[in-house]
Formats: sequence, C-alpha cells, structure tokens
Amino acid sequence: MSLKDAPELTPEREEFYGRLDTRSLTPLWTVLHSVVTPEPKSDCRAHMWRYDDLRTFLVEAGSLITAKEAERRVLVLENPGLRGKTSITTDLYAGLQLVTPGERAPAHRHTQSALRLILEAEPGAHTTVNGERTQMSYGDFIITPPWGWHDHGNDSDAPVIWLDGLDLPMVSHFDASFAEEFGEDQQPVTRESGDSLARYAANMLPVGYDAGGQASPVFNYPYDRARGALEKLKAQAEIDPCQGIKLQYVNPIDGGPAMPTIATFLQLLPKSFKTAPYRSTDATVYVAVEGSGRSRVGDEAFDWGPRDIFVVPSWKEVVHEVADEAVLFSFSDRAAQQKLGLFRERRGNS
Amino acid sequence: MSLKDAPELTPEREEFYGRLDTRSLTPLWTVLHSVVTPEPKSDCRAHMWRYDDLRTFLVEAGSLITAKEAERRVLVLENPGLRGKTSITTDLYAGLQLVTPGERAPAHRHTQSALRLILEAEPGAHTTVNGERTQMSYGDFIITPPWGWHDHGNDSDAPVIWLDGLDLPMVSHFDASFAEEFGEDQQPVTRESGDSLARYAANMLPVGYDAGGQASPVFNYPYDRARGALEKLKAQAEIDPCQGIKLQYVNPIDGGPAMPTIATFLQLLPKSFKTAPYRSTDATVYVAVEGSGRSRVGDEAFDWGPRDIFVVPSWKEVVHEVADEAVLFSFSDRAAQQKLGLFRERRGNS
Amino acid sequence: MSLKDAPELTPEREEFYGRLDTRSLTPLWTVLHSVVTPEPKSDCRAHMWRYDDLRTFLVEAGSLITAKEAERRVLVLENPGLRGKTSITTDLYAGLQLVTPGERAPAHRHTQSALRLILEAEPGAHTTVNGERTQMSYGDFIITPPWGWHDHGNDSDAPVIWLDGLDLPMVSHFDASFAEEFGEDQQPVTRESGDSLARYAANMLPVGYDAGGQASPVFNYPYDRARGALEKLKAQAEIDPCQGIKLQYVNPIDGGPAMPTIATFLQLLPKSFKTAPYRSTDATVYVAVEGSGRSRVGDEAFDWGPRDIFVVPSWKEVVHEVADEAVLFSFSDRAAQQKLGLFRERRGNS
Amino acid sequence: MSLKDAPELTPEREEFYGRLDTRSLTPLWTVLHSVVTPEPKSDCRAHMWRYDDLRTFLVEAGSLITAKEAERRVLVLENPGLRGKTSITTDLYAGLQLVTPGERAPAHRHTQSALRLILEAEPGAHTTVNGERTQMSYGDFIITPPWGWHDHGNDSDAPVIWLDGLDLPMVSHFDASFAEEFGEDQQPVTRESGDSLARYAANMLPVGYDAGGQASPVFNYPYDRARGALEKLKAQAEIDPCQGIKLQYVNPIDGGPAMPTIATFLQLLPKSFKTAPYRSTDATVYVAVEGSGRSRVGDEAFDWGPRDIFVVPSWKEVVHEVADEAVLFSFSDRAAQQKLGLFRERRGNS
Repeated sequence: MSLKDAPELTPEREEFYGRLDTRSLTPLWTVLHSVVTPEPKSDCRAHMWRYDDLRTFLVEAGSLITAKEAERRVLVLENPGLRGKTSITTDLYAGLQLVTPGERAPAHRHTQSALRLILEAEPGAHTTVNGERTQMSYGDFIITPPWGWHDHGNDSDAPVIWLDGLDLPMVSHFDASFAEEFGEDQQPVTRESGDSLARYAANMLPVGYDAGGQASPVFNYPYDRARGALEKLKAQAEIDPCQGIKLQYVNPIDGGPAMPTIATFLQLLPKSFKTAPYRSTDATVYVAVEGSGRSRVGDEAFDWGPRDIFVVPSWKEVVHEVADEAVLFSFSDRAAQQKLGLFRERRGNS
Repeated sequence: MSLKDAPELTPEREEFYGRLDTRSLTPLWTVLHSVVTPEPKSDCRAHMWRYDDLRTFLVEAGSLITAKEAERRVLVLENPGLRGKTSITTDLYAGLQLVTPGERAPAHRHTQSALRLILEAEPGAHTTVNGERTQMSYGDFIITPPWGWHDHGNDSDAPVIWLDGLDLPMVSHFDASFAEEFGEDQQPVTRESGDSLARYAANMLPVGYDAGGQASPVFNYPYDRARGALEKLKAQAEIDPCQGIKLQYVNPIDGGPAMPTIATFLQLLPKSFKTAPYRSTDATVYVAVEGSGRSRVGDEAFDWGPRDIFVVPSWKEVVHEVADEAVLFSFSDRAAQQKLGLFRERRGNS
Repeated sequence: MSLKDAPELTPEREEFYGRLDTRSLTPLWTVLHSVVTPEPKSDCRAHMWRYDDLRTFLVEAGSLITAKEAERRVLVLENPGLRGKTSITTDLYAGLQLVTPGERAPAHRHTQSALRLILEAEPGAHTTVNGERTQMSYGDFIITPPWGWHDHGNDSDAPVIWLDGLDLPMVSHFDASFAEEFGEDQQPVTRESGDSLARYAANMLPVGYDAGGQASPVFNYPYDRARGALEKLKAQAEIDPCQGIKLQYVNPIDGGPAMPTIATFLQLLPKSFKTAPYRSTDATVYVAVEGSGRSRVGDEAFDWGPRDIFVVPSWKEVVHEVADEAVLFSFSDRAAQQKLGLFRERRGNS
Repeated sequence: MSLKDAPELTPEREEFYGRLDTRSLTPLWTVLHSVVTPEPKSDCRAHMWRYDDLRTFLVEAGSLITAKEAERRVLVLENPGLRGKTSITTDLYAGLQLVTPGERAPAHRHTQSALRLILEAEPGAHTTVNGERTQMSYGDFIITPPWGWHDHGNDSDAPVIWLDGLDLPMVSHFDASFAEEFGEDQQPVTRESGDSLARYAANMLPVGYDAGGQASPVFNYPYDRARGALEKLKAQAEIDPCQGIKLQYVNPIDGGPAMPTIATFLQLLPKSFKTAPYRSTDATVYVAVEGSGRSRVGDEAFDWGPRDIFVVPSWKEVVHEVADEAVLFSFSDRAAQQKLGLFRERRGNS
C-alpha cells in the first residue's frame, strides 16, 4: 500500500500555495507521493551502448581534441533518462576514455573515486597513482583513490581505451568536490611497479600499516588473477541461481569494497546458463569482458558481446542468459548504499 | 589550481557534439569543470526562515487541510537556490509540521530517516515508533528510524509543532525509496512509555542485544538531559573556538550517529561568545532553541531568535555571535559523508 | 567424544621421555588429554564468601596496617581451587578493600583494568580517576581504566568498603604488566565532579571525540540510574528464563564492554523467580546487591543475602532461585573471550 | 617508580594471615608487588632449539609410537622457565610434529587455534581442513581455525615435519577448551584443492560472504607467494631499522590477523643487516626459514641457521644480526594483546 496521492487542489489552496511560494515554502502534501515512493522510481533508464559504435566516435574525438586540451578525452555515457546530468545512473558516471600513442593525460587529483576497466591496451599503456606506475592490460580493474594524484600515458603504438566509472554525481549531490592540478603532465615515479601488489595484495600487510582512508591501497587488480579465481571456482560447481559465480573486488585492509562509494564485481556465467530474476536498489553498469548473451531488464532486452556496456536501473528485474561462457564486470553504488543502510535486493520472482 | 575550463568550441566540434548527442553521449571536456570543481559549488543558498512567519502560514494550513488528508501537514522549507527540489540542502529536507488538537497523523513507514525537533508541545502531544509511544516536549529530539512504523497524535488543547528533517533527497538520489501505509491511523502501543530509554539509554544494554540496523534504538532524546549536559560542561570551561560546547547525539549501540545518514548536534554558545570562522562540507540546518544572536554565512548575516531556522551551505564560512547565552540544535549529512570518506572541515581563517 | 587418553607407558618410552626432558622437550601425547579437554576443566571451584565474615577480617586488617603502608588494604578472595594464585577465577582477581576515615590510598596506575562495586560508603568517600573525583555510594559501579591514575580517599566518619575486580591474572598470563606510582598520595583534581557523566553518558558525545583506548570514559555508573532502568523494564515483563532482566554496562563510545577485558552486568530477578539452567565459558563473580536467594552451581548450593559474594566456574551449570526480588551485580572475562572468539554458552538443560 | 614491596611481617600480622588463610583469603599487600609489576616479569626464558637435534629425537619418536596411538606425534618445545606447563611462552605452545610415510593423524577439532610452519615435506604430504585438502611444501604457513575439523596425512616416501603453534595455554587460562574426535581417521574431502585460495585470497570475496568467525578462510598461505612479496619489497629499499622488511599474515575478510589469538609474520633481513634494539610485550617464537644469523636476546645470544627455533620473552630486548640474507617466520600472542589493549612496544635503546 503506497502513500496517498496529492489532495485535491481547491482555489483556496491554490491561492495559499502561491503565497507560500514567495516565502521559500512548499506544501509537502502536493509532492509527498513523488518523493516518498512505495518503490524506487527514477528517471534512470535501461540502456546499452555497443562498443563498436562508441569506439568509432572515440577515435574521431582523438582527431578533434588532444588529451592535454581535454584534460581527459572521454565520451560520457549519458543515461537517456538523465540527459544533461553527466550520469549513467542517478549517482554514478561512466565514460569511455582514449589515450592515443605518445599522449599523456595530465596529473591531477580530486575527491571523486575513479575506476577504470581496460578495454584495449598494448604494452606501454600505463597509469600512475601516487608515485607508482602500473601497466594496463585487457580486463584489468584499476582504481584511483579519492585525492590520489593520477596521470595516464600511452607509450605503445596502439590506442589505449578504457571505461571510466566515477561517483561524480554522488559527490556533487553531497556538495563535496575538491580538485587540483599537479602542475606537470606527469608526477614523478617513486615506487617500483608492482610495489603495492607485493605490499598489500599477497594476504599479508606491513606490520603496523595505517590505512589513512577507505580506498584500497591495491590499485591494479589484474584480470588474469581475477579470471583465474573464477575459473577455479567453476570446478566447485556452486553456482548461484541469480549471479552465477560472482566475486567482489575488495580492499585487503578491511575486506570492504575497493572504493569508498563504488562496489565492483566480476562474474562468470557458465555455458548456457540463465539466471533467476533479480532486482536490487543499486543501479548497475555492466561490461561484457568475455562471451555474449542477452540480458532482459524489465520489459527490455539487450544482446551484448565483448566490450558492450549496459546499465540496469534500481529495482528493475534483470535476467542474464548466455550461450557460451561469459564474464561480466559490473559496478554500482552498493558500497555507499550498504554503508548508509539503504541497500535492498530481491531474489527470484516477485 | 583548478581543473581547466571547457576547450574552445569549433564548428567541427559542434557538429561532432551534435552527433554524439543522438547516441546518449556527451564530451566530458565540455562539462568537466562544472562537475569536478576545485571546491564545493552548488546552488544551495544560505537562508533563514523566521518562526513567527512560518507559524502563521502553518496555522493557516491547519484550516485548509486535515492531517489525515495531507498524510502529514507540513510546510517544506525549500532552499531558495533549490526550488522545486523539496530540499533545504542538496541532500536533506526540512519542514515544519503541525498536528492540531485531537488530530492523528496516520501510521506509515519508509526507508527515509526522519528527525523531529519539538518547537511547541503541551502534555498530550505524542509520537509512536515501533509500538512505543513517547510524549513530546519543547526541545526534544525524536527520531523515526528507517522502515520504522510511526504515527503522531495530539491529545492536548494546543497545537503541536515541530521541525522535521529527513534524508528525502539523498534517498531519492540513491533510488532507494520504499514506503508503506500501516492501514490504520494508529499502530497498537505494545511497549511502556520510556521503555527504550531504560533499555538502551542508561549506558547499559540488554545482554546479547542485536541492533539489526544503524539507527539508534533510543528514539527520544529529551531536551532536559541534553541541556543539562551542556550546562554541566560549561563549568569545565573548555570552549571550542569554532563551536562553543557542542555535543553530537549518538546511537548507544555503537557510538555512531543517531541516524544512518543524518548527524545531529546540540551546542551551547556562552554569553557574548563569538566563534572563530569555520567551514565544512556538510551543509547544516540550525534551529535556535534558546537565546539569540547573529550568524554570518559567507557574505550574508542572519539575526535569529528562538525557533528561527537557518541553513548554511557546504563550505561557506560561518561565524556565530551571541549576546545572551544561546543553544543551537543543528543537523547535516555529516553522518553519511563520514561513512563515505567525503567530509572535510576547515577551522579558522582560510 | 573426547581426545584419547595418554598412551601406555613402556620402559622404552620412559627412557626416551627422560632424554627428552633434558632438552626442554615433552611428548605431547602424555599431556594432550589434559590440555585439550572435551569441555572446560579447571581447578577453579564454586565458592561463596559471606560479607559479614569478610567485613570482620577487613576491619581487623584496618587496625593492623595502614592504607599507605599496604598501598591498598585489600583482602584477596582467593578461589579455594587456586590457592597461591591471587585469583578468584583462572584469569580474574577479586578483593575487598577498606579505606578508613581520613585515609588515602595513594595514586598509582597500571595496565590492569579495575572495577569497584561499592558496598559501604557515606558521603565523603571518593575515588579520583585521571583528574576527576567522584563520590562513592552503595551499589555504584566505578572503573579505573588501564594506565589511568587513580587514588581513593575517605573524608567521611565511616569506613568505606568495596569489592575490587581486576584482570591481574590475565595480564600476568599475557606478561604485560606495567605500573607506576604517582609520587604523591593524591593526584590533582582538574575536572569538575560529574564532568565525564555529562560529557559522555547522556547519549551524546563531544564532536570529534577520539577514544584513544578501549575503556569507557564514563568511570562511575551510579546505582540509582542502573537500578532505575531495571525497575522500568520490570514493567515490560520480558523476563529472560535464564537471566531475568539483565543489562550489561557499556562504553558509550562504541557500545562495547565498559572495560577492555572484563564484562559487567546488573540483573534483577523478580519475586519468586527461578532461572532456567545456564552455563557459559566465562567464570563469573556475583555480588548480591539487594534481596536474597539460593544459587545452585553444579552440585553445590549457596544461600546468599545482601553483599555476599560467590563465584561460578566456567561451564558449571547455575540456577538462581529468589524469594523476594533480588538484584545481582556480576563480572567475568566475557569481554576478553568474545574478542578472542572463545565465548560459548548453553541455555537450558544439557 | 614501581609499586612498593611487601610490608614488614610482624608476629601479629603473621597470626592474622594464618586465620585469613583458612577462609580462602589472602592479604593483597603481601603479593601486590609480584602481581602488579613495573614491567613484565615472568618465568619465560629465552631459549633456542636446534633443528638437527629436534629432528633426531622426533625420528626416534616415530619408531616408538604411531601417529594414531599418539593422536598427534609431537615433541613439545617446553620453555625451560615454564617446565611442566606445556608452554613455549606463558600463553602459547609450540611443538614439532612428524607424520611418517603412509600415516594419518586422525581427524578432530578443538577450540584452540593452530598454525603449522612446514619444515620438511615432499609431494604427497597434506592436511585437510573443513573438507578441503591442501598440499604441504617447505615454508608454507597453514592454519586450522578454531572448531575446524582437521587431519593430516603423508602419501610421500619421506617424513613430513612441521612446527605447530597453538594457543593451548591461553585457552586453558580462559577455561574455554572444547574438543571432539571426528570418529574416522580422515574426514571426507568435499572441496577442490585450492578452492579457498581462489575464493578468498585473490583480493576478491564472494558477494555477501559471511565470515562466521574470526579465523581466516584462507588456510594455506604458500611460501612462494609470501617470499615473492618480500623479494619484491626489497627493491623498494624501505627497510625498517628494527624489523627489516616484515609482513603480517592477514585474514582477507577483515585485514585482521589470520587467527583470532595468534599473530604471524614473515620478515626478510637483508645481507649484513643488523636490527636496532626492539622490545615488545608479545613473547615471540622465531623460526629461521632461510639464511643464518645471530640474535641477541637480553644478555644471551643465539646463533641460528635454517629451521632452528628460538623464543624471545616479553619485553626482552632483541637484536638480530645476519650475514647472508635471512628470512624469519615468527608468531606471538600479539593478535590477542591488541584486541585486549595490552600490546606495547619500544623501538631503539631504552
């Protein structure tokens, strides 16, 4: 049973509302039903962007503007229901970024958390975070923590392309954006490549380590390791009806999400698997890393293949059906929702 | 140094942007400077509502609509910079609610957290939360936890009026609103009045108590106790330059904020005290509970007296100056910001 | 099924064991059954000390040694099964302390946590902790946190007597004892009496408060408040079959136990109440604060009245039976056991 | 300044003490100085056991008793200052265990936590924990969590030998030992080998994973990965003066210690490195995994080589000096001490 609709509008009330309006006042009962809804109800829509299509535009952008002039050469995947809001869901942003051979995306930092899922990269493509440089390879999941200096470069002969995911709309909603330029294109590299993986990612931690923040100090989660874990678990044959085999990337310091606000996942759907219906309050962005399939989202269906990107709004029922084995990367605001006590999910039919 | 402004708009680019637009794409570099700002920058404005003014309108509303028809008879304090958004800050809502003698505001529940600061109440004014009824008195801070049944009633001969604060815009931003009517005006009362205070508020907890949520099980924080604590601390003369004597209402289960998303405070500013400049990322709503003074917020100044309500936007410098001793209640999204790692503050001059 | 008993002792083995012995070696199989037992099995015994008896000896001690010469004039309640170990359970200590009129127990500090349950006190009996003095009254539960300066004094005309509980054996077991004399009988009083109650105990906390330790900053939990909470809850009539109405004293900073290692409880057993059998791994010291009754502990039974003290060993079944309403204070190592994952309990018959 | 020594023993007092003794009472002032010491002071002594020596005895034990008859064929390394207490420190136990070719150490479980550091193993040596079998190799650190079924077997042609570390004395001190035989020599193997490494150790966790305990679900921390991490960090040249390069094994669920009570470490001391003096309250057992060196512990010095085992008591100053690069494994009760707020350390000279 939902909260009631707005009461009748009488001439008296209308006149009263007009006077309220001049005093920065609004009668709650005229809007209550639209802000306290029985179920999540937003303008966010299900949508898919085909990678081939995106790539064509991105390459064209490469000829129209440099990374340096653009600061970041990114095409924002803007939700069709949220045009003008620089958002793929109500609180997250996604964009496809290109760094052409020889380019640098200049060093800066900001309070927004950022993730990258690498979609094209040859040896020589790299990102540097807080003094450590890491190489990018297909499927790698890389983060830049809040207020961490980061710059990107491409010393290969091929373009490097990745999907960016940030909490831009969320940080704007909280009025908490801070940003700085480093002042030079690249920050100095002060740590060996792989240092953070050795220091924090081997199920060991430096004695007395003090995190000093919520983001994972591991900033590159290589695809081969994540994929290897899924492959191993396939043998155990404990397949979740709604999710197949699904792992969440975590911060080794506390077992929490890799970023303070954004949760990230990698899941394997075995050959011919069809998931049971599932819905949750965290609108989710999916990227097909391997395989192909069809996802039904509410009344719509999307046929996807490698590198295609689609978004599932909050509380829309989703069913994935794959032909060959598929691997999906996904991210959502579940990290934030769980901290705030807002997350809900429903497994199976309503 | 801030991130750069948007690059030049050439005809070629304009034509390209037009084609992007048809594919739900946007060039990041045209909007980057507006979404990743060097400092918080929102449409939220400083503003004050005088209680006398509000009360007049509210009483008029009392004659135009019943609590039952309205579900809740509330005038929303809508931030002048955020008109149409049912918000007093970017992510919080505030409204002034009236229950006339003999009325009931019907029982319902929702995922939004709600606080009430009681501004007028005679014995007989009450609210019931999850089966326990509590009496309302001036200055009491009462919460209704997420998904907790609650209804209000007034068995006195005088109107009861309070300030509501909810995380409505935040929950909408996260697309996580759920709500239900109870189906009757009042839920059954199944616990003694004062039960939760005895059970959870005496610095003791039931053996093996399992919270099952982030909200405090104490739902009425009586003013006389809170005020008494401030009075006692005045004697110790440890006055914070920025905040006077300021206590945060906490959840006795974990020492965290009383609500999952909203932080609430009571502070005493001694006679003739002037605070040092202070700014923080949590836009804050203040209510003068006792005394009077002037608050400078950025370039504006507000002279307030008892029950007046004003809002300080994110990262705006605020200075309070009081003549006689004053007591301010305030609430903000600091609870959420701290969980998400977004909170910043700056004490003293910039 | 338990681990097996020691294997047969052959002459060959005996000769071998003799050679091992010279090398600081022992064959595990000769002792395994005694160190890895199927159930807790220690030398700790159930026992009761009558207050009248204790008091007589304590008063005599008052004439034989001064508090100053003794540092603390305390009679240790030594478990009959653990003589020579200064222990009432395997890891806790209890003693009855006397400060005669005009005396001071000199200021010192140590890493051991200490609790006091006040059993006799007239106005003027006081303890000072970290610069704040508090008055002692019957039934008050007072703590001195690890490494906190504390001294006791008696400015009344009557003796003050309390039960001390410390984690002395536990800290010795961990080889982690540190202690210092202050150098003067009394530390300076730098805070108003009642300051910590106002600052931390009103379900509010100072903004930005940093605990800096695990012990509660509230160091006096007055009996009237604790007793009042129990009285209130009696009306709700939710009586636990094993425990009556039982509350745990908590640290308002985090909702955890008031001390890092020792858990403390106050419970009310209504008139004519008989508890269901209960056993737990935390050997527990009980003090009757009000009323009288009989407690069966394993095969033994103890009839107690006000101020009598009895101890229940780990995993011994206990049943309390009262005539008139009774109030029991109790303490145990449950705080430590829960942190270490060792705590177990069993409700009802085995 | 320490607490004072025991007061003078007068004939009157002696007579009084005698009467106290009959009532299970002891005057605190006669023992206070020995239980509340200014610094840790225990009977635990520094000691070293040479592996070659141990191995000879252990092989002899192999001919005198079967694993089945012994339940576990282990020689306890008993601290020379704690003879008869089955302890290597006041609260920890260590022993050297042998399983001969073809043998099984039968399945059982207990509330004690156990660690194994593998010192000799050929392919075919294995341990099974909660249904998953893992192979043992030199230097592997393997745990059996509290109340987890475990059995060991050796299907190779060579003896397998490892160091066991358990919290036996600690669990006895807390009176919290429970144990059960499985009833058969081996529990059924229900999970693929390597399952837990894939599921929990790749910086990813199963979605919605609920730990249900404090012990790490990763139960084999292979030496090659741990050693590889140290090797990598050597390149970064951040060598701690007291500890060289030292990592702690952690539970990926929460970043805490791998076991609830016992902390475990692996540290690399570069060629010719000499540590600065260090002392801490956690008495520590060291095993040389690679290299050789000399450790000074208080006034004693121990020259160690591969597989030698030595113990450093609480608060004894230790200095390690190595010729060639060395790797030390160590374990202590630091996990428990930190949870209980007891841990202290001092770096550099006193």
